[in-house]
Amino acid sequence: MTPGQMLDVAVEEARKGLAEGGIPIGAALFGSDGTLLGAGHNRRVQNDDPSVHAETDAFRAAGRQRGYRSTIMVTTLSPCWYCSGLVRQFNIGAVLIGESRTFTGGHDWLAEHGVAVTVLDDERCVEMMQNFIAERPDLWAEDIGE
Amino acid sequence: MTPGQMLDVAVEEARKGLAEGGIPIGAALFGSDGTLLGAGHNRRVQNDDPSVHAETDAFRAAGRQRGYRSTIMVTTLSPCWYCSGLVRQFNIGAVLIGESRTFTGGHDWLAEHGVAVTVLDDERCVEMMQNFIAERPDLWAEDIGE
Repeated sequence: MTPGQMLDVAVEEARKGLAEGGIPIGAALFGSDGTLLGAGHNRRVQNDDPSVHAETDAFRAAGRQRGYRSTIMVTTLSPCWYCSGLVRQFNIGAVLIGESRTFTGGHDWLAEHGVAVTVLDDERCVEMMQNFIAERPDLWAEDIGE
Repeated sequence: MTPGQMLDVAVEEARKGLAEGGIPIGAALFGSDGTLLGAGHNRRVQNDDPSVHAETDAFRAAGRQRGYRSTIMVTTLSPCWYCSGLVRQFNIGAVLIGESRTFTGGHDWLAEHGVAVTVLDDERCVEMMQNFIAERPDLWAEDIGE
């Protein structure tokens, strides 16, 4: 799978979230061979659960794994500190990011700590997120603790 | 409520987790006036869910809050990077820690970023965690991604 194809899975998740009335951020965890281990999206609104960010949802969907070093976390938006902490604690080897123009979390910090970070600057991701923030600034602020 | 009384709530959660066959780490989120907003414990084993650490469970149990600056996260063990990231992203104002002898996560990093960090060095917490790690080193390694 190419990085673009992996990002497509996360974008599809973000769109599902948007269709459900939620915050459009999606993520997926892949094995080194491109196997999809788990995918998910932000569920703050849908589940009334502030703890489910896209990355934590994908991580949960992947179930209990014995080691994450060879896995790749793909997300439509630069991971916030919560999700960056997840990546660091579990030694996820690589993070592939749709965009970081709208929001920049801890991805530089992850790179400093040895995580292979790639930012694709994907227009679909930028547009979806910026449209959402323009429409629901309240939900967005809530989701990043501001 | 005193710090010791707040820690008692987290210790009780850790004991619940242990009785369920899980990893004995408990946490609770309090308001500035001592109101308990939510409590929880690690559920990796019980729910087969690697995303539920004690702190994320307590955060979830507290529901959607509009701002965390005045809240206090109490946990039996120094928060790992995942849970430290949660504290930083949501601007939780204070973290009260049972012990950090067994494991030290990101609490110094949180203190550098303005979080009021207190370590109580509570013997009950040390003993519960060290006994557990001696009995189930496999589960403990899995829970911290090692």
